[in-house]
Amino acid sequence: MVNHSPLDNTFAALADPTRRAILSRLALGEANVTELAEPFAISLPAISKHLRVLEQAGLLERRKEGRTHQCSLRTEPLGEAAEWIAQARRFWGEQLDALTQFLEQPAPAAAPHRTAKK
Amino acid sequence: MVNHSPLDNTFAALADPTRRAILSRLALGEANVTELAEPFAISLPAISKHLRVLEQAGLLERRKEGRTHQCSLRTEPLGEAAEWIAQARRFWGEQLDALTQFLEQPAPAAAPHRTAKK
Repeated sequence: MVNHSPLDNTFAALADPTRRAILSRLALGEANVTELAEPFAISLPAISKHLRVLEQAGLLERRKEGRTHQCSLRTEPLGEAAEWIAQARRFWGEQLDALTQFLEQPAPAAAPHRTAKK
Repeated sequence: MVNHSPLDNTFAALADPTRRAILSRLALGEANVTELAEPFAISLPAISKHLRVLEQAGLLERRKEGRTHQCSLRTEPLGEAAEWIAQARRFWGEQLDALTQFLEQPAPAAAPHRTAKK
């Protein structure tokens, strides 16, 4: 079995529209499980499963408050994911810049032909 | 069956270390399938499957050159993914700013107690 890295878990957690919607809601402030479930036409167990995925990815923290669980966003994994994407785009940007520079250079003098030894 | 949105496909594609490594390699410039497979101790069919996932997510483009396929990175989906993450972090940052401002405000005068009607 492959061990999943934090980045694997973060991106896998983000690969679902319900989980992204839950995170967007939590970005506005903490909420309890019932509040989080409300906008979705799916069962509470299905929501709970999504919350567990988010929790395991370190994107969600639960805090018991009386009889309810208050959930809040943890943004550290988002930072790491953003950094990975930014780096890939930066490298790619540098390649494009280098290509543009290369294409804008005056054409080099033709290399002398290698002549076969007689 | 749920239809997967472009963002679902992008994040799912990024949720695997081999696929991320392939994208990092492609960010440095195009490469053929053999070159892409070289650093990995996995079979060529397994690499091909990863390339298909990246292609379906719109992150990889193949161009036939003679008998080989040249692969190159397409960064548009990365931009969309970065924007989603940035927005979630921005909302969250605004919440924290609002909370900080609230906590830094001078305590309001105590609200007058409601007195029970006699």
